[in-house]
Amino acid sequence: MPRLVLIRHGQSAWNLENRFTGWWDVNLTEKGIEEAKAAGRLLAEKGFDFDQCFTSVQTRAIKTLNLALEEMGRLWLPVEKDWHLNERHYGGLTGLDKAETAAKHGDDQVKIWRRSFDIPPPVLEAGSEFDLSKDRRYAGIPIPSTESLKDTIARVLPYWESRIAPVLTAGKQVVISAHGNSLRALVKHLSGISDEDIASLEIPTGQPIVYELDHALKATDRYYLSER
Amino acid sequence: MPRLVLIRHGQSAWNLENRFTGWWDVNLTEKGIEEAKAAGRLLAEKGFDFDQCFTSVQTRAIKTLNLALEEMGRLWLPVEKDWHLNERHYGGLTGLDKAETAAKHGDDQVKIWRRSFDIPPPVLEAGSEFDLSKDRRYAGIPIPSTESLKDTIARVLPYWESRIAPVLTAGKQVVISAHGNSLRALVKHLSGISDEDIASLEIPTGQPIVYELDHALKATDRYYLSER
Repeated sequence: MPRLVLIRHGQSAWNLENRFTGWWDVNLTEKGIEEAKAAGRLLAEKGFDFDQCFTSVQTRAIKTLNLALEEMGRLWLPVEKDWHLNERHYGGLTGLDKAETAAKHGDDQVKIWRRSFDIPPPVLEAGSEFDLSKDRRYAGIPIPSTESLKDTIARVLPYWESRIAPVLTAGKQVVISAHGNSLRALVKHLSGISDEDIASLEIPTGQPIVYELDHALKATDRYYLSER
Repeated sequence: MPRLVLIRHGQSAWNLENRFTGWWDVNLTEKGIEEAKAAGRLLAEKGFDFDQCFTSVQTRAIKTLNLALEEMGRLWLPVEKDWHLNERHYGGLTGLDKAETAAKHGDDQVKIWRRSFDIPPPVLEAGSEFDLSKDRRYAGIPIPSTESLKDTIARVLPYWESRIAPVLTAGKQVVISAHGNSLRALVKHLSGISDEDIASLEIPTGQPIVYELDHALKATDRYYLSER
């Protein structure tokens, strides 16, 4: 039967500094590197293996995948990297300290931006130091200027349907290394979580989440691998 | 115009121990890791960039590529991993110390196995500790029991023609991270080196070799990047 494992990247430098990151390409911290390796060791210990890997085009998710695969002796597995699995784009909040932003705009406003389903933060101004329009990786791609969680889900799910679901339907084992919000999109879809509840569902870093699926890709079980 | 960069993986544990390696999946040493990173830094300093990466399914080549790409800020580039780019299969010599093998079989015999064009070493016996027939990575693949350099070339070139050459013909920039003998196959083809001369052509570890190509993929220049 098909099996899907989701891994949120290990701690990044801006997770540690408590800054909004989104599409900005921040690297893992030493702790994040260790989390990724631990995820790989746990997967190997529990006898997990994969046929196909997917990740975003962001360094922290790719590196998490590579470190986990290396621990599993599976660096040779095929990996598809795609921007549709990127983190939610945080618009004009990108790079800002979360506490400073709350002091400036008020806790309530920041909570709305972070936890509402369909209200995006202010847009990222063109020419900002976090403007990615000159980044080769996004050439020809419709870079968002900001995204609500709803917007993120709206670009993750078509990619799931076109690229990932067919591999699972063929009975393969798949791992996805991605981000808090792109993984929320998948968990919402697979576990049928409501618009109201999804934004507050926390996905811990470096913890493999296992979905056992039937051939129609209906979830028959979901669990944290560390708890089995 | 298309451009091709070849990188032989950095020093592996068995390069250091002077053992025949071939398809056995030996990791990089610390020195090998540093060589791979230095290759990536050099490529970035010289303003090189890529559209598509190719590597074997052997850890030492994949890791060399990943380390170099990370130094270039290019972990997000697409990577195709394929067994056709694997090292020459050393048959029954796999795992043996080169000096001990010379003491046992004579220097002349070992030189023939290492440096002749079309004489393969003895076959690897089924059930040997280096037998890869149960390795998932090679499921469905015709694993050789030994290879001459000619045999290696005979499986590298069809892959070159079908997967790599079309990308270059489209004007793209390509990097290949691979092995001494799979890279000899490409250098022989691109530089028109004779059967007699190719086996003694040394390809140094971690040194990017640049081919500037015309649209017919005829080499207009070949150089070590460190020398420009």
